[in-house]
Amino acid sequence: MTTRREISKDFLTDLRTAIASGDEKKAQALMEDLHAADIAEIYDEISTDEARFLYLLLDSEKAADTIAELDEDDREEFLESIPSEIIAQQFINEMDTDDAADVIADMSEKKKQEVLRHIEDIDHSGDIVDLLSYDEDTAGGLMAKELVVVNQSWSVLTCLKELGRQADDVDEVYYLYVVDDDRILKGLVSLKDLALSKNTTIINKIMERDIHYATVDDDAEEVAQIMQKYDLVAIPVVDAIGRLVGRITIDDVVDVIREEAERDYQLASGLTEDVEYSDNIYRNARARLPWLIIGLTGGVFGALILGRFESSLRIYPEMAFFIPLIAAMGGNVGIQSSAIIVQGLASNTLRLDGFVSKLSKDFAVAFINALILSLLIFVYNFFISDSFALTITVSTALMAVIIFASMFGTIIPILLNRFGADPALATGPFITTSNDIMGLLIYMLVGRMLYGVFA
Amino acid sequence: MTTRREISKDFLTDLRTAIASGDEKKAQALMEDLHAADIAEIYDEISTDEARFLYLLLDSEKAADTIAELDEDDREEFLESIPSEIIAQQFINEMDTDDAADVIADMSEKKKQEVLRHIEDIDHSGDIVDLLSYDEDTAGGLMAKELVVVNQSWSVLTCLKELGRQADDVDEVYYLYVVDDDRILKGLVSLKDLALSKNTTIINKIMERDIHYATVDDDAEEVAQIMQKYDLVAIPVVDAIGRLVGRITIDDVVDVIREEAERDYQLASGLTEDVEYSDNIYRNARARLPWLIIGLTGGVFGALILGRFESSLRIYPEMAFFIPLIAAMGGNVGIQSSAIIVQGLASNTLRLDGFVSKLSKDFAVAFINALILSLLIFVYNFFISDSFALTITVSTALMAVIIFASMFGTIIPILLNRFGADPALATGPFITTSNDIMGLLIYMLVGRMLYGVFA
Repeated sequence: MTTRREISKDFLTDLRTAIASGDEKKAQALMEDLHAADIAEIYDEISTDEARFLYLLLDSEKAADTIAELDEDDREEFLESIPSEIIAQQFINEMDTDDAADVIADMSEKKKQEVLRHIEDIDHSGDIVDLLSYDEDTAGGLMAKELVVVNQSWSVLTCLKELGRQADDVDEVYYLYVVDDDRILKGLVSLKDLALSKNTTIINKIMERDIHYATVDDDAEEVAQIMQKYDLVAIPVVDAIGRLVGRITIDDVVDVIREEAERDYQLASGLTEDVEYSDNIYRNARARLPWLIIGLTGGVFGALILGRFESSLRIYPEMAFFIPLIAAMGGNVGIQSSAIIVQGLASNTLRLDGFVSKLSKDFAVAFINALILSLLIFVYNFFISDSFALTITVSTALMAVIIFASMFGTIIPILLNRFGADPALATGPFITTSNDIMGLLIYMLVGRMLYGVFA
Repeated sequence: MTTRREISKDFLTDLRTAIASGDEKKAQALMEDLHAADIAEIYDEISTDEARFLYLLLDSEKAADTIAELDEDDREEFLESIPSEIIAQQFINEMDTDDAADVIADMSEKKKQEVLRHIEDIDHSGDIVDLLSYDEDTAGGLMAKELVVVNQSWSVLTCLKELGRQADDVDEVYYLYVVDDDRILKGLVSLKDLALSKNTTIINKIMERDIHYATVDDDAEEVAQIMQKYDLVAIPVVDAIGRLVGRITIDDVVDVIREEAERDYQLASGLTEDVEYSDNIYRNARARLPWLIIGLTGGVFGALILGRFESSLRIYPEMAFFIPLIAAMGGNVGIQSSAIIVQGLASNTLRLDGFVSKLSKDFAVAFINALILSLLIFVYNFFISDSFALTITVSTALMAVIIFASMFGTIIPILLNRFGADPALATGPFITTSNDIMGLLIYMLVGRMLYGVFA
């Protein structure tokens, strides 16, 4: 019995010592019983040469599973030096079609052709070629060809025999999919119902007809939403005319959900490419640089705007004190509004509200907060600052900046979404920087107007 | 056959008209075939009175499923006006134990007792009371009591009979769990293997022994990680001495994963409570206010710091131009570093690196970016600005601010995590505001030093 095995530092040291001394027995003993997902984690920590030593010790099924579990980058590096023939016969042969297609999709066109030619089972390579034709962000790109399919006219006994014949290829059987003679999907039968039915019963008497399915071109994220909403562990995929062509299992969908959430999080944190701590320094730096350069450019624009008001700043230098406050509040408020919209769009809970109703709701929220915050800063300045002009200017500008930034933060993701772009971009650098700059401009303009009146 | 049904505006209008005119037949016709998850979405859009009209039209199983699918807030509001007896007999009776425990856990102590007393099936209420004793963030809090359990000495035929007897209570059977006479978990059998084995085979000959399981006190997020890593659709849960007490299914874990990701995203976006666009204006405003108040306080501190340098700003007002740039860069860099660490901690990929190695890696990344950005702003100011002192000051300060903010952003989530707090707090308001302020201080101090030298 096992729970998760932690790959400890000591374990790694032992393993690397065994590899360094070429001690195959020791290495094999250490790796025994490890799940492919654990071995993939080990591969992530050791060099490609060490990984190559290890893979020769694995049986080919475990080796194939490990390859499927690896990070894309690690996998590419690892497979680069291995001949196409071995990749085809030792790895791809043993993989489910969806994993095989994912692995092959990352290869160069030349290597792809070589590997495909070397797959011995023509059905397997045919399935993989079929899968390669789908966009990876669609149901077709997510699905596997492995499933158990039975004809609606068969008896339970025939279905059980078919299950025995077909199930070898399928890791986890949740349902038998029922089709007609043209392979049009008609329904499904759970293994439970199959096991509990009489052998002579015809399958279309016990199958569920009112089932959820996806079509090959459906968006992967939409499929993920359906499977989440209806708590499905697997969903059949049909082609344009309703023929059963594959199935998507929940584990692949969990990855979609996680990756989508990570992408949004990275955007909101200013990381512009998919990056992990364990990536190298160069890649870590590169992922952070674009936002910082946009931020820097925004800062330069900010400096130019403030430069236009140099005379005001010379006469009222205390106005400069509140520049960070105004800029920070504009940026913060904008991100908050955008994030709420991004989440609402992702969870599909906004669709019944019109544009105007969204905007007026956001205006109300912004107005409440703007009023509270402006009052707070008014009271503070009223008692602390000598300048009533400053007190009025900061409060008024803050009010205007919060409302403006909030509306801007609401509108941009809605527009991005309407034009087919990822609304999460709104929480990224360009928009927040724009909000910072607009905030400054509003502040200085309000200042110029009000200082004349009150100073 | 169905894919997702969109709850359209027209559909809602029709339904509300039917409700308003008390047309039960029409309402029933509209709701026919709708999945409980869809009805829950409708409940989210209509008033409590309208919802009460509808629930009387549902059969009790669908009504119970709908209640289980509702948002916590909607549910509380809806159940408030319904007598405990009806809640117990119409809803809780029909629910799986995990859903029932979730629903009851949200009630007041008095209502909780009343509802529990009114559940007729003593086994069911006993199971629910058991589940209520676990913290909701543990495996015990996630699990359901419904599962199919067989004794290791039984034959396949006996197991099939037991499956027929027990399976009525269990929505989705993926595995039969195998225990000994003391109910100690020994292994599992997939339905596929059961269906394909001879009736006379003893179950412990075909069961898998090397299985993943969770213990009741395991952290929910850790269970989610294990199920993701090993692609499990269900995991058995044992008590402290290894007795089988429940199972967790992937749909509950998907919710954990999504909620965790949403919480991190909300923190990074400055939202301090779990809020959705569809929540009311007051709640939306309240979720945003705390960060804004902290930001405002940070801004006031920034103003105080700048006030200490008023004489410098009076002499060199052009220094004020670059205040937004410096403050924004400090905040941005800090969030980036924190987000990378937060993600690494969440995906458990950092554990093999020590504190010092993390810090030196982050230093290298920060140094590269600081160098590039400082050079860019140096070149810009060298050609644009009249003041060489300003040119030197901005570049030097930016370099220092980026490196400081990056280290700070790396250290804080690691420390939070070490002391058992949520590392994602580091991307929240307090830390980013601290970074803004420190950036200002560094800038003004560098300015004071360098202006003396170069001006």
